Amino acid sequence: MVEEVILLDYWASMFGMRTRIALEEKGVKYEYREEDLSNKSSLLLEMNPIHKKIPVLIHKGKPVCESIIQVQYIDETWPGKNPILPSDPYQRAQARFWSDYIDKKTYGPCKALWSEKGEKQEAAKLEFIEVLKTLESELGDRSFFGGNEFGLVDIAFIGYYSWFYTYEEVANFSIVAEFPKLILWAKRCLIRESVAKVLPDSDKVLKSVSEHRKIILGIS
Amino acid sequence: MVEEVILLDYWASMFGMRTRIALEEKGVKYEYREEDLSNKSSLLLEMNPIHKKIPVLIHKGKPVCESIIQVQYIDETWPGKNPILPSDPYQRAQARFWSDYIDKKTYGPCKALWSEKGEKQEAAKLEFIEVLKTLESELGDRSFFGGNEFGLVDIAFIGYYSWFYTYEEVANFSIVAEFPKLILWAKRCLIRESVAKVLPDSDKVLKSVSEHRKIILGIS
Repeated sequence: MVEEVILLDYWASMFGMRTRIALEEKGVKYEYREEDLSNKSSLLLEMNPIHKKIPVLIHKGKPVCESIIQVQYIDETWPGKNPILPSDPYQRAQARFWSDYIDKKTYGPCKALWSEKGEKQEAAKLEFIEVLKTLESELGDRSFFGGNEFGLVDIAFIGYYSWFYTYEEVANFSIVAEFPKLILWAKRCLIRESVAKVLPDSDKVLKSVSEHRKIILGIS
Repeated sequence: MVEEVILLDYWASMFGMRTRIALEEKGVKYEYREEDLSNKSSLLLEMNPIHKKIPVLIHKGKPVCESIIQVQYIDETWPGKNPILPSDPYQRAQARFWSDYIDKKTYGPCKALWSEKGEKQEAAKLEFIEVLKTLESELGDRSFFGGNEFGLVDIAFIGYYSWFYTYEEVANFSIVAEFPKLILWAKRCLIRESVAKVLPDSDKVLKSVSEHRKIILGIS
């Protein structure tokens, strides 16, 4: 009970994936509770009254909200195995900068890619391509964003990879052909057990999004 | 030269104030360079090519961008004096959550309060009042957001206090009368030498904003 860890989450959430990957990296056993986002549980509303959003990490009865904050909490609470943030303060600042960049720039266009059509979807595509260019340039020829070790920025972005196929299909463009370094990076991440275990199947994401698009846009 | 610290900043920026307060708390000597935001220096564009924004902290020739990341960098690089983040992982996560909340919820309505008029300004006022209610409730009867010690969340929000008078004047409402606990908290922060030294005079902020409003809105 004392070490009890509960995660309120939704399977396709790239934010939730970050927290799940961090828990897997540390070998922390946790209880996963799937939320119905159209009918959120009273526990979710009680534990995250400010944002009312998943994922919520509950440790020893106390909530930690916001995925990047959760990942840092997990790294600080279980510091021994697989460090997620580097030990050098400058490298830590760089890791925080790029995960913050991903949070500020990626979700908006990515949501619009599947929840909009026409001009708004086209604008989102151009915006997302700029983000991908910036990230591919930042990655360069390194194995991971932080260098040789898998870390915070990889965790911040890898969840989006499970949505790439959906973005390509619904918005009719190719990420795979245009960003080979990012794709190699994603495949490198997927060799890790934590990532392979957490990332959902791309077809499953597309199927779910297509059903949702039928409801909100009247198209698949 | 090796320990050289340079801050590219703008005097009225509540983001820059965070970094300046953190440097003062640690007793770090630094060179302050005022930026002309309508004609940014080549050094700023070179050091922050992604966001092209102040403040930029340059330490030993290397840039750290984004104010909350800078404050954490300063805390980790000069850890001895006046710790800014608590040592307990859960308390650290809480401090990060509330500084992130301030970043996500405050700047948008605060900018609209002075750069808009009419309905948009009214909407911003209601939005900002909700933020103030949430922060006053979170503060409760504590001396500082983290408890008895001045820390990250205080640093994240205190810069806005130097703009309160401007918001009140240009948007015609009272923060002072409605949020007594926040005002007492701000006065408590101002007892600290770091805050007193960094926060600009409220009249100076109003004068500058009024001149800007004349240009962009045609009103004072």
